[in-house]
Amino acid sequence: MRRIRVPLGERSYDIHIASNLLGRLGAECRRLKLGRRCAIITDDRVAPLLARQTAASLESAGFDGAVISFKSGESSKNLRVVADCYEQLASHRLERNSFIVALGGGVVGDLAGFVAATYLRGIAFVQVPTTLLAQVDSSVGGKTGVNLKSGKNLVGAFYQPRLVLCDLDTLKSLPERDYRAGLAEVIKYGIIADERFFRWLEQNLPALLKREPKALAKAVARSCEIKAEVVGEDEKEGGRRAILNFGHTIGHAIEAISGYSRFLHGEAISVGQVAAAKLSQQLTSLPAKDAERIQALFNAVGLPTHYRLTAPKRVRLLQAIRLDKKVQDGEVKFVLAERIGRVRTGVRVPDELVNEIMGRK
Amino acid sequence: MRRIRVPLGERSYDIHIASNLLGRLGAECRRLKLGRRCAIITDDRVAPLLARQTAASLESAGFDGAVISFKSGESSKNLRVVADCYEQLASHRLERNSFIVALGGGVVGDLAGFVAATYLRGIAFVQVPTTLLAQVDSSVGGKTGVNLKSGKNLVGAFYQPRLVLCDLDTLKSLPERDYRAGLAEVIKYGIIADERFFRWLEQNLPALLKREPKALAKAVARSCEIKAEVVGEDEKEGGRRAILNFGHTIGHAIEAISGYSRFLHGEAISVGQVAAAKLSQQLTSLPAKDAERIQALFNAVGLPTHYRLTAPKRVRLLQAIRLDKKVQDGEVKFVLAERIGRVRTGVRVPDELVNEIMGRK
Repeated sequence: MRRIRVPLGERSYDIHIASNLLGRLGAECRRLKLGRRCAIITDDRVAPLLARQTAASLESAGFDGAVISFKSGESSKNLRVVADCYEQLASHRLERNSFIVALGGGVVGDLAGFVAATYLRGIAFVQVPTTLLAQVDSSVGGKTGVNLKSGKNLVGAFYQPRLVLCDLDTLKSLPERDYRAGLAEVIKYGIIADERFFRWLEQNLPALLKREPKALAKAVARSCEIKAEVVGEDEKEGGRRAILNFGHTIGHAIEAISGYSRFLHGEAISVGQVAAAKLSQQLTSLPAKDAERIQALFNAVGLPTHYRLTAPKRVRLLQAIRLDKKVQDGEVKFVLAERIGRVRTGVRVPDELVNEIMGRK
Repeated sequence: MRRIRVPLGERSYDIHIASNLLGRLGAECRRLKLGRRCAIITDDRVAPLLARQTAASLESAGFDGAVISFKSGESSKNLRVVADCYEQLASHRLERNSFIVALGGGVVGDLAGFVAATYLRGIAFVQVPTTLLAQVDSSVGGKTGVNLKSGKNLVGAFYQPRLVLCDLDTLKSLPERDYRAGLAEVIKYGIIADERFFRWLEQNLPALLKREPKALAKAVARSCEIKAEVVGEDEKEGGRRAILNFGHTIGHAIEAISGYSRFLHGEAISVGQVAAAKLSQQLTSLPAKDAERIQALFNAVGLPTHYRLTAPKRVRLLQAIRLDKKVQDGEVKFVLAERIGRVRTGVRVPDELVNEIMGRK
């Protein structure tokens, strides 16, 4: 088993990565001295596959776990579902020393984490991410939240889990498209922080696409290491944490203008990262060779690398970028690459450049 | 002007107490280097009295403030109103460096604080409490939250304001009943931490009931000092902060079983504190003389000191006590007094004793 520490003082916690880990959940929760009562928050895609096994692990360690399940998908990530979870926690009599297990992908982790952050002004929670995207990104770092009608993730809290348990076996049942979308975040870590890892990904992509356990363990672990290090330096995105947003400014805007239905998040940020690479060539001297390698790797994964927009759609894209919550005093700041493995934050990008790149054939 | 520091490391902040302070709000927000955009969250009782003056102070200091008002009263302290505030913040384009001004009593402060804690994962907020209860208690210490159908304050966050501005002039328009109810928390500080202050209250009650500025300033300032010291030692109620709950276990239960309509919070904890004093005589050796002084002072303020319950209502009271969120592993812990000025936390109280005391004529 690989164990990675997220160094956040008294809020520090471990990420465990291995196959066949879910059975150990109960024992790990005991080591953390959590209270007897807990709730497993999950969705109706994951529940039939894993809820029973999860509850059994907790029960065998002496915990009393209720299962709370909601309809799977981004459309459930809202305040109505949050309110419903609260009422169920109250009816199960969860107390201040009780805890929540978030069992599922990014939507489950974000929503259950926010519920944990705010129920009784915060109770403990454990992340059990079951998608590649959640294992390498959303379950680590303490960003929790839900969407408003006005935009994604506008409501939330920085709230750290007590443990992240990545059971690689849970990825076996992941649909191919979701799996590949998850790789977009894995590649991002190479671009923002580790050229060697990027090269390893280029070389080991066939094994990774076959989900070979050894390659998968390495990819998840190295991704989590990089994220843990960045988050440890800057928990609340005051500075360095912004590098994690590489490809996300355009990616988020693409999701917004396509109604969050056409692209998975990983697909949108694949397009966004390739676009950011092109901007980087012009604004932060990214070598053409690096930009080509970036595009080629996303291509090899089978992810979209360009989304050509008509002129009216480009106007909407630029509006969506300005609505992003990373905007400060009305000004949009991009994360761009200087070379593979190093990025610069806070780069101003002229609208015309975004317009030109997103209009290319 | 009196200035009290709440010592919480990088989350430290000041409480300012004086007459005629509201006009200085804008200047103080500038000193804190808050972003240009802000929202004043208030209710429809306070808005007609103070919203214009508040907005003017902010505008004259260069801020761009929108006013968000909801129906006054405890029934507004719910997730629906929270969601409505979020959407209005989004439509006013508040950004990460924007801030919220909570202008009103406890309901406004608790709700606006929770909105600030969770909008964009937390933006700055300033408390401008306009009731005595809010000035001496709820605006200080960072407890924010709203009610669920299942119970009061079950959802919330520990989230500290950047400044608390207590303008004593805002208390002039406070209804007599609310003013007296606020004194119940003031007296509590004497009981839990400062016999000398308790004695000062006994001696200066006539001036205080006339709301004489000098007496009022001293009462608010000493209350805030004690609360600041306790919160500084124990921000998240892991230990000493529990002393602030003196009288609240029975007080909250009385509010719950009477449907939150018969008693104001201050009235319920007046009954609760007198009951706690009686329990303290039997369990923590509170001298009879001290118990009498406690009851006499609440009496002199004109607050209720006993609420006789029928047998079926006493059953409901004990159930309500067990539903309180301070319960751990099913066990209720009381804060009881050893003498005026010193309390002990974590005292187990037999149900029969509560039953006996609340059934007395």
